[in-house]
Amino acid sequence: MSSERVATVRPIEESQASGKVAEIFADIRRTKNIDFVPLFWRTLAVNALELELVWTSLKRLMHPEAEGREGLLDAKTREIIALVVSATNGCSYCVNSHTTALRKLGLSTAALGEALAIAGLFNMTNALAEGFQIAPDVLPPLAD
Amino acid sequence: MSSERVATVRPIEESQASGKVAEIFADIRRTKNIDFVPLFWRTLAVNALELELVWTSLKRLMHPEAEGREGLLDAKTREIIALVVSATNGCSYCVNSHTTALRKLGLSTAALGEALAIAGLFNMTNALAEGFQIAPDVLPPLAD
Amino acid sequence: MSSERVATVRPIEESQASGKVAEIFADIRRTKNIDFVPLFWRTLAVNALELELVWTSLKRLMHPEAEGREGLLDAKTREIIALVVSATNGCSYCVNSHTTALRKLGLSTAALGEALAIAGLFNMTNALAEGFQIAPDVLPPLAD
Amino acid sequence: MSSERVATVRPIEESQASGKVAEIFADIRRTKNIDFVPLFWRTLAVNALELELVWTSLKRLMHPEAEGREGLLDAKTREIIALVVSATNGCSYCVNSHTTALRKLGLSTAALGEALAIAGLFNMTNALAEGFQIAPDVLPPLAD
Amino acid sequence: MSSERVATVRPIEESQASGKVAEIFADIRRTKNIDFVPLFWRTLAVNALELELVWTSLKRLMHPEAEGREGLLDAKTREIIALVVSATNGCSYCVNSHTTALRKLGLSTAALGEALAIAGLFNMTNALAEGFQIAPDVLPPLAD
Amino acid sequence: MSSERVATVRPIEESQASGKVAEIFADIRRTKNIDFVPLFWRTLAVNALELELVWTSLKRLMHPEAEGREGLLDAKTREIIALVVSATNGCSYCVNSHTTALRKLGLSTAALGEALAIAGLFNMTNALAEGFQIAPDVLPPLAD
Repeated sequence: MSSERVATVRPIEESQASGKVAEIFADIRRTKNIDFVPLFWRTLAVNALELELVWTSLKRLMHPEAEGREGLLDAKTREIIALVVSATNGCSYCVNSHTTALRKLGLSTAALGEALAIAGLFNMTNALAEGFQIAPDVLPPLAD
Repeated sequence: MSSERVATVRPIEESQASGKVAEIFADIRRTKNIDFVPLFWRTLAVNALELELVWTSLKRLMHPEAEGREGLLDAKTREIIALVVSATNGCSYCVNSHTTALRKLGLSTAALGEALAIAGLFNMTNALAEGFQIAPDVLPPLAD
Repeated sequence: MSSERVATVRPIEESQASGKVAEIFADIRRTKNIDFVPLFWRTLAVNALELELVWTSLKRLMHPEAEGREGLLDAKTREIIALVVSATNGCSYCVNSHTTALRKLGLSTAALGEALAIAGLFNMTNALAEGFQIAPDVLPPLAD
Repeated sequence: MSSERVATVRPIEESQASGKVAEIFADIRRTKNIDFVPLFWRTLAVNALELELVWTSLKRLMHPEAEGREGLLDAKTREIIALVVSATNGCSYCVNSHTTALRKLGLSTAALGEALAIAGLFNMTNALAEGFQIAPDVLPPLAD
Repeated sequence: MSSERVATVRPIEESQASGKVAEIFADIRRTKNIDFVPLFWRTLAVNALELELVWTSLKRLMHPEAEGREGLLDAKTREIIALVVSATNGCSYCVNSHTTALRKLGLSTAALGEALAIAGLFNMTNALAEGFQIAPDVLPPLAD
Repeated sequence: MSSERVATVRPIEESQASGKVAEIFADIRRTKNIDFVPLFWRTLAVNALELELVWTSLKRLMHPEAEGREGLLDAKTREIIALVVSATNGCSYCVNSHTTALRKLGLSTAALGEALAIAGLFNMTNALAEGFQIAPDVLPPLAD
């Protein structure tokens, strides 16, 4: 009987990785400029196809510079989206990970608080709009 | 038998509003620079206390300039938080409302797509981190 | 291309029901004191076992008087729980159904607003507590 | 590598608080009649504006007597709403906090079980109504 | 101040159980072919009615063979549904419990990863479809 | 004022598509063996990168045969995962789409009801396990 969180599969150790998995691990360290492969990626690696799919998507959206492109949103905004989605869903691993990323990008504690306050506010208004079944009164313009 | 969404309470018409409610309706039109009071606020007005609480919170966080302050995050980032929280929760009224606000702020369709793609990505990673019960491998620095 | 909501299975008409399903339909009309079987139950009836399971659970918890027992919570509190859970999850059918039930029980529009305001408030605090990863500071007493 | 939950920001110690924050901390202790400031409030205090907004909303809705008003719902019903929303969202801090509050208000363990059983039931029916895309068959009366 | 998860009510010990509760505990051990009663059931037992309702539903849907019936879906598919719902909701107890059940049924780690990858994928598409408010373009046939 | 759901961006018409987008549209029609491109994909196409990312992921996980591989789970199980995740999140577009897919794969109405009943059941147990804060009593074996 334990309340400590332990992954339900055995993560791949970096030293065990080979082939495709080892390549992706190296790409993660390089792209994120970190000297270890986070547990999230070592866990996904139990299924190499899954690791590749998720990493490809995340790299493309969150590290466009690694592919010689620029994102339409800046890095801080992208990580704020990650944080507020994770707060809304209550994902502990994810909140910690994206808060760490935002610290590296220089977000102050007060600004972190503002982002979460706004996320909290709209979780409130979402429940109200659904709880009263309010129909949209104005549709957004389809401009481009 | 109807699938059309209709609010479960009778919204307050602008012409019916008096006292505190009328004041808040005027403040909404002025602060948001719009010439009507959206259905969301006219619905909350069935309970004046509720209208006041939600409007006060939203005005303070989303319209700091109306109180002579500056937010720590810019207006576009604030509305993006609103949108991605609403997309995560599946709130139809809210998605429409915040998309409209982002259009007014000049967000392009491609950037809107990028914001939602990132929100989608992290709804995926949230489910993965929870589905494997991954424990945080690194705690964010408590800087500040 | 249609945005009108239509059930993905063909609901059982009351006149078509026979055997177990007809018995449960009759029990629903009698227990809820209504003269039609709501679409929810006619839809579940596509799988008789499912209809029986959900109706048995709902009858036992929401209509204890029909089984000669009293609930520990009163009828209004029970329906308020149903409403705020449905608002939190954004279930349109359910919000309409439980608002209707609360009207029958005499809940005023202002009190409905208060219930939803409180539900909204705690959707906000939930996102904040998760967004900051706040650990419980006090465990509830295990009285009884 | 740790699975212990630790807040992502450094909470404000009660002895460190000054100005607006100290006033709110005192109001929390007085209004809730407790001799410490819970971690939730000390964490929000990293952004004084956020602390003020959330406390003002919570005090107004959950402690109307502190403002010389009466709520339309009683204290036990209000805390039950808080609990079932928190259970639905899976917020650990919040479930513990509101269970503690309900114990103080005298809710028995069996009644707590009934409240959660009802919350569980409607999380089930919500998924069913959405999973079959059932359209509302009856709209609530807009009486007042 | 503790982040360890502890149930908010005192679970019933197997040796303390009597009457209806003892019968259900015995049925759980027998039906699931395990030599202890999991904490989930011992916790629900604080309200005997609740224990009976949830166990009856779960036994009927998840252990049809115990009632001399066959399910329409096989045991592995049923447990996969349990797992992906739990991953989507972020329920720690449930993810652990259903992963254990899937191991017993012989699911490989790679297949577990595939199930969660698919669950992650559709949490992403759900957020996208809601975030763009996409209307159904094709309604399913009402065959049968 | 309208409650009809309309996408917040202008979907790309099939006849308008060119380059990368046209290629992906063709691949969608071919891989899914349908003669139109569903609204979901035409909407994502407002951002070509996003369209590519989501389609690549979905094709790889849901149509492995198109890449000369076999999935570890069969096609019906994969679509059931899609359906129950969508039911849990309340995504209307997605529930319709995956129900249609399951019909094509031959799932009977009764089996569809069983899948949703099981999804409903575990949404109930998830809320109960979280509402009582039950700690895992048994960790899954890390076999493989």
